[in-house]
Amino acid sequence: MVPSTNLTFPNRDTHRAWLASQAALPAGFRVGTTRFDFVPREAPKPAKMTLTLIALDRPTPDFAAAFTKNAFPGAPIIVGRKRLNAPALGAIIINNKISNVCAPGGVETAERVCVEAARLLGLAPAAVLPSSTGVIGWSLPTDAILAALPQAVSALAGGTILPAAEGIVTTDLYPKIRRADVGGGSIVGIAKGAGMIEPNLATMLVYVLTDLAVPRGELRAMLARAIDASFNAISIDSDTSTSDTVALISSGRVPCEDFGAFERGLHTVCRDLAEDVVRNGEGVRHVIRVRVTHAASPVLARALGKAIVNAPLFKCAVAGNDPNVGRLVQAIGKHIGAFAPQTDLSKLRAAMGGVDIFANGVFQLDPSKEAALIAHLRGAELYASAAPKDGVFSAPIDFPPHERCVELEIEVGNGAASATVLGGDLTHEYVSENADYRS
Amino acid sequence: MVPSTNLTFPNRDTHRAWLASQAALPAGFRVGTTRFDFVPREAPKPAKMTLTLIALDRPTPDFAAAFTKNAFPGAPIIVGRKRLNAPALGAIIINNKISNVCAPGGVETAERVCVEAARLLGLAPAAVLPSSTGVIGWSLPTDAILAALPQAVSALAGGTILPAAEGIVTTDLYPKIRRADVGGGSIVGIAKGAGMIEPNLATMLVYVLTDLAVPRGELRAMLARAIDASFNAISIDSDTSTSDTVALISSGRVPCEDFGAFERGLHTVCRDLAEDVVRNGEGVRHVIRVRVTHAASPVLARALGKAIVNAPLFKCAVAGNDPNVGRLVQAIGKHIGAFAPQTDLSKLRAAMGGVDIFANGVFQLDPSKEAALIAHLRGAELYASAAPKDGVFSAPIDFPPHERCVELEIEVGNGAASATVLGGDLTHEYVSENADYRS
Repeated sequence: MVPSTNLTFPNRDTHRAWLASQAALPAGFRVGTTRFDFVPREAPKPAKMTLTLIALDRPTPDFAAAFTKNAFPGAPIIVGRKRLNAPALGAIIINNKISNVCAPGGVETAERVCVEAARLLGLAPAAVLPSSTGVIGWSLPTDAILAALPQAVSALAGGTILPAAEGIVTTDLYPKIRRADVGGGSIVGIAKGAGMIEPNLATMLVYVLTDLAVPRGELRAMLARAIDASFNAISIDSDTSTSDTVALISSGRVPCEDFGAFERGLHTVCRDLAEDVVRNGEGVRHVIRVRVTHAASPVLARALGKAIVNAPLFKCAVAGNDPNVGRLVQAIGKHIGAFAPQTDLSKLRAAMGGVDIFANGVFQLDPSKEAALIAHLRGAELYASAAPKDGVFSAPIDFPPHERCVELEIEVGNGAASATVLGGDLTHEYVSENADYRS
Repeated sequence: MVPSTNLTFPNRDTHRAWLASQAALPAGFRVGTTRFDFVPREAPKPAKMTLTLIALDRPTPDFAAAFTKNAFPGAPIIVGRKRLNAPALGAIIINNKISNVCAPGGVETAERVCVEAARLLGLAPAAVLPSSTGVIGWSLPTDAILAALPQAVSALAGGTILPAAEGIVTTDLYPKIRRADVGGGSIVGIAKGAGMIEPNLATMLVYVLTDLAVPRGELRAMLARAIDASFNAISIDSDTSTSDTVALISSGRVPCEDFGAFERGLHTVCRDLAEDVVRNGEGVRHVIRVRVTHAASPVLARALGKAIVNAPLFKCAVAGNDPNVGRLVQAIGKHIGAFAPQTDLSKLRAAMGGVDIFANGVFQLDPSKEAALIAHLRGAELYASAAPKDGVFSAPIDFPPHERCVELEIEVGNGAASATVLGGDLTHEYVSENADYRS
């Protein structure tokens, strides 16, 4: 998971201009959105919902999707798993605000929305994939969605994917778009992330569109491999959403002459979107990139990386630009002690920001290294935390200022396996976002 | 893990008076402390350390101890494991501020402190158990400790364990003492907790003293069982300290006529101390008690309880008195999906504060239930979060106002096993404590 870009944005406008430069829709797709007010049944005060429609000019058999492994999947996930067997896909209908998870009659509601979208688009209902994100447990406002669907259909337009990237977000600070141009075609992905981001996908909706003609079987195998190296290697807070979805759809409009090049492009798009999702994770002020090497197995390497980026005390220290490497070693020792207690750690070496901090069973620290570590942490900070008058912290940015990470290297020293994992720090902004999310 | 007390304290004085009423030392023990200034080698600004000495009137063969499973144990843990084979124990020497973990020469330093304490007390060096808690990676100030030891020895006094309960703390808000009177003797325990609290013990030092004569073998078996049902069933932040220690020492001064009654008393002391440690966990504003029943195995029941009390988004919701039961179900589904995906969850029932919230695969919510859940959360709050001017949140209490918990019942519905797990919410106070811990 080496970054493919190292962008910096001084302000919102430069970021939006860059997004626009990435946003050209592949041939054969149109997107449309509509926003409307409604009153949730469970908490009777007005709320807003955006419907986002992604439509193909004609249905395609060549699509792939992967869903959350949470044992309480949302209704759209239950429906989506069935759609994998459908002969063709013609549209995706996405709503934010309510995730339609474990709500009474949720599957019927999701299907009803698909039926109506299909009717308006002239498709079979099984050619529409539903997606929802937002509050768990609430019921979708079916009537309001059905009433709004025609506006989403009339808004459908080609050219740019930006309206869809903007339409699917919840607490995201900015839209996320990544692209790869391959041969005469392109692969363009958008993502909605923020919290509840962990392995096996995240509270994450990702739609990757391509005009390159890749058959269903190859598409599905390539998507599984790309997800394993990208979305399954990130974690914001170890929580696994009930709604995670990654979909990949080919309009087949451009012949694909090099499947290898296509797969490399797909990996780049997924990897960059995964990193975007972490960088814009709820309350994330530092992205932490852990590279674990010389481990006994790839599974252990990844699990150790995850254990580090999910260790609350280490995450807090990073938030405070505090190179508390004791907590890093604690997190490693906790994981190894619990899951691989026979591991010989006498050769373990650790570095942060290129500075060696641990070897031969003891810390390798001195005041000049401490200063270098603090500088590294400060350099990776996305924004400084500002004490708010009312105690509710919020991010002061709506663009990613840079793509620098806190870089950790953990050389376990008894094998040949490696893995890279991305995560974030644990901040007041995360707590404020999530202790007051529904009000 | 049903609470043995349901105390309330209107202020610090009533709590301290209650502590004093619990603090009578068992026969055969004395405690002494001393506090001194020193300059750490790694961060050259003055710091304070307290040395706490627990001494027996004569060495005893009847002692037990359990230590962290972290794969990078502190030097005192490495020494302590050896002590388990010593013929007798005569004293425990405890320092706070620096944990002596992975510091160069750490084991030699711990042994040197034991040698000097043994010399002053007329013991064999192997009769002294060392304990340290605090910053990981720093070196113990050996000279300052050796210079301070004589004062700790001259401070030794019987009567009350309170000085030791106060001496071992770090970021704890108040000392923790629990007792059980059994026959003509007693079991009295003290604990230091706060952060890095997870299974397999915690950043937790616990010393349980008894004058009841129980032989080494029985003592060790009983301690293992008591820990399993108490300290191994709590989690503040899933982090496992490198220093966790629970020691149980019998002075043998009172004949024990009923080992069953002794073990019940030991369980009570451990269970209550474990709950105290959670209640006084770093930034904990709500204690969450999860009772998992009708599970397929005790291991699954406990793991599911741990998954719930460690789910960051649910913990944040609890902090905000927000009955976001969607996040509770998310946490259950995440754990089952990852670790027991074949589990049939169709019979799962969940309740919070006695209010049924989930059954038959869907939420069972209405506005009156929502109000009841909010009232339950507010009733379990230890203190309200106050927005500080400088953005650094801190607990406004130095006593536990009450022992009420957020009570969760999860009936999995496909087995006979059960477990109770305690944890805390995730608050601004936790982040403030841990993003700025070392400065």
